[in-house]
Amino acid sequence: MQTAQNSRNGNSPTPRIAIIGAGVCGLGIGWRLAAAGCTVDAFDQGEPGRAASWAAAGMLAARAEVEPGEETLLDLNLKAQEIWPGFVAELESASGLPVDYRDDGTMIVALTRDDAEALRFTYDLQKRLDLDVDWLSGIEARQREPFLSPNVTAGIYSPGDHQVDNRKLVIALQRAFEAAGGAVHAQTTIRAIDIAEDRVRGVVAANEESDDIHHAADVVVLAAGAWSRDIDGLPTELRPPVRPVKGQMLSLRMDADAPLLRHVVWPPGVYLVPRNDGTLIIGATVEEKGFDGDLTAGGMLDLLRDTWEALPGITELSVDEMWVGHRPTSRDDAPILGPTGVEGLIMATGHHRNGILLTPITANGVSRYILEGVVDPAIEPFTLDRFAKRRGKRARPAPDGKLGVVS
Amino acid sequence: MQTAQNSRNGNSPTPRIAIIGAGVCGLGIGWRLAAAGCTVDAFDQGEPGRAASWAAAGMLAARAEVEPGEETLLDLNLKAQEIWPGFVAELESASGLPVDYRDDGTMIVALTRDDAEALRFTYDLQKRLDLDVDWLSGIEARQREPFLSPNVTAGIYSPGDHQVDNRKLVIALQRAFEAAGGAVHAQTTIRAIDIAEDRVRGVVAANEESDDIHHAADVVVLAAGAWSRDIDGLPTELRPPVRPVKGQMLSLRMDADAPLLRHVVWPPGVYLVPRNDGTLIIGATVEEKGFDGDLTAGGMLDLLRDTWEALPGITELSVDEMWVGHRPTSRDDAPILGPTGVEGLIMATGHHRNGILLTPITANGVSRYILEGVVDPAIEPFTLDRFAKRRGKRARPAPDGKLGVVS
Repeated sequence: MQTAQNSRNGNSPTPRIAIIGAGVCGLGIGWRLAAAGCTVDAFDQGEPGRAASWAAAGMLAARAEVEPGEETLLDLNLKAQEIWPGFVAELESASGLPVDYRDDGTMIVALTRDDAEALRFTYDLQKRLDLDVDWLSGIEARQREPFLSPNVTAGIYSPGDHQVDNRKLVIALQRAFEAAGGAVHAQTTIRAIDIAEDRVRGVVAANEESDDIHHAADVVVLAAGAWSRDIDGLPTELRPPVRPVKGQMLSLRMDADAPLLRHVVWPPGVYLVPRNDGTLIIGATVEEKGFDGDLTAGGMLDLLRDTWEALPGITELSVDEMWVGHRPTSRDDAPILGPTGVEGLIMATGHHRNGILLTPITANGVSRYILEGVVDPAIEPFTLDRFAKRRGKRARPAPDGKLGVVS
Repeated sequence: MQTAQNSRNGNSPTPRIAIIGAGVCGLGIGWRLAAAGCTVDAFDQGEPGRAASWAAAGMLAARAEVEPGEETLLDLNLKAQEIWPGFVAELESASGLPVDYRDDGTMIVALTRDDAEALRFTYDLQKRLDLDVDWLSGIEARQREPFLSPNVTAGIYSPGDHQVDNRKLVIALQRAFEAAGGAVHAQTTIRAIDIAEDRVRGVVAANEESDDIHHAADVVVLAAGAWSRDIDGLPTELRPPVRPVKGQMLSLRMDADAPLLRHVVWPPGVYLVPRNDGTLIIGATVEEKGFDGDLTAGGMLDLLRDTWEALPGITELSVDEMWVGHRPTSRDDAPILGPTGVEGLIMATGHHRNGILLTPITANGVSRYILEGVVDPAIEPFTLDRFAKRRGKRARPAPDGKLGVVS
């Protein structure tokens, strides 16, 4: 396999890396590369980490999130979870900042008989996949979380599913990245990726002060989340199939000294994430609305109602914040990671709802490829070419020479 | 009856008026007085009209709001409603600004059988009081408002209950007041009312730039809403029995060209007020929480759910604003208007939920008393001494000389 080093311009003593998107993935990759001695510039159209990375809830919940047919993604998520504690230690040490990693565990709870049946289906799947989860009666659920509604009749407890404060993660990653010598270019839009003779040459950046400056780079990492698809210069077949999936969220303020909730809890329809400072994050709608940024009456109503049904004590909590984020969702809900058909063009996008969870493994896997030319087995199933292969299987020339669809 | 003029200091060519509180009542009274040639200073602890006047919904709904046992208040409210159109014409002309008075009428609607029975009770009361209202079937209600839920089974239509944009009213009143020569002192707290020998002498004001300046005045109008009770210098028996009643509200954004709603509509639990610009005001919780200013999860949930039950089309409307106001509520829910036992001390407070409706009649009645010494028959039942009389009836010296309560 050809490495990124091999492909880079010989004029440069260390690889020059341009990262498009300074979210948690871009900053995580950038930190690893800067720490390894690369010259790294991370460009963000807004402030670093203020898009999906900021909007997220920070759940690290491979087991709770498992869905039928996503065993490959589950492997990645579990590996990501394994390296989280070490990543936290390293990041907090490098940045000098806490990221409030919490290992209280995650509970899924059921209110109705239908909920309980669906929960039992999830539990059976988790057990078949050999995941460490426990079935809880309603009473056991309330022993763990006393303020859950008496209507909670069953639950699943997943001790290995944790959380991190994603906003503190953003701040710490930026600090660590910059401390390692990386440069963040905020409010800077990448207008195009410069590709010539199947190799990246750099990016064309513009901000309020200057228009269309060419930044030469040996490696370009596309980590622009939901904005990854429509950057000029990307050949059609290399446009990652990533779209924005809108999520509305809000947060309430608990008493930090006597919080209403301690675990991450998933009642039907919502998830609840209690933070150390008393913030209770409530998420999230799932809406196919493009980049629509509206907070809607229906979105807020659904989140508040579904939360109140399971945790009626929210009534008197004050509303702290309401916001909208855009998940960078790929066609198969799995991330798009690693090399592409163009030398030096690397993907780190399409993380859907797993961007925070996958930050360490994305940072490690993608930086390793750039530094060593080795596609880590963990990320190998997630390269962009999985979509190309599927297209190849499905569309073949028909007898008359036109494209026909083979089912 | 002694007039305010008689009581004023002979050094002054026109009465010098100090108004405590530059909300709609203070500004309305001030406008009338300044236009009549008085020297008027209106003091507000914040920006003028940004407390209850700003938080309100602007409903002018004497008929819809009628409650058993409040016939005296109903008379006042109906008189207030009668003079609204003329007041609007005068104010819009004086200020050059629109206040968006709308006479589409008001509908109360019922969703359940219980709602419908309660509505029938209200309707019977309204009819006994000879109010012009119509009973509507669910179909007739939806003919007027096609997007009401199919669950709306009955309604009352009150063609005479209108609305005004209370925020535009604030702006127009301030403009008219200042154009007539009145002075607004924003961010200025009245620390005390100066009373000597049973006559007001002025007020003691403080703001960020200066501490405790004495403003001489012949007349002091106490129009400080929920903040009217605790001003130094007020004798105990003249402290108006007014308390803050917290209300949470929010607004949504409709398509102004094809609004979801045209009438003011009261489903169970909420009221909905559509503005010309597409704003849909939704109010309000009623909470005995003092000056607590929190927006709560329960407050927002109740408002959104009760609205959605009657008007499911709100789902996709964007949330525009959420806010908290404090109704200045008197012990009997009626305003406190007119003269007191102290010469020159005039009340215009305690308007509860009727402050916008009663703005014109308060402005006219209170200014008339100050200018002519005549207590308008409309406001006569609402002077402060109604509470003193009741106290007098109930508390008498007991035989041992202590106060005893006579039931």
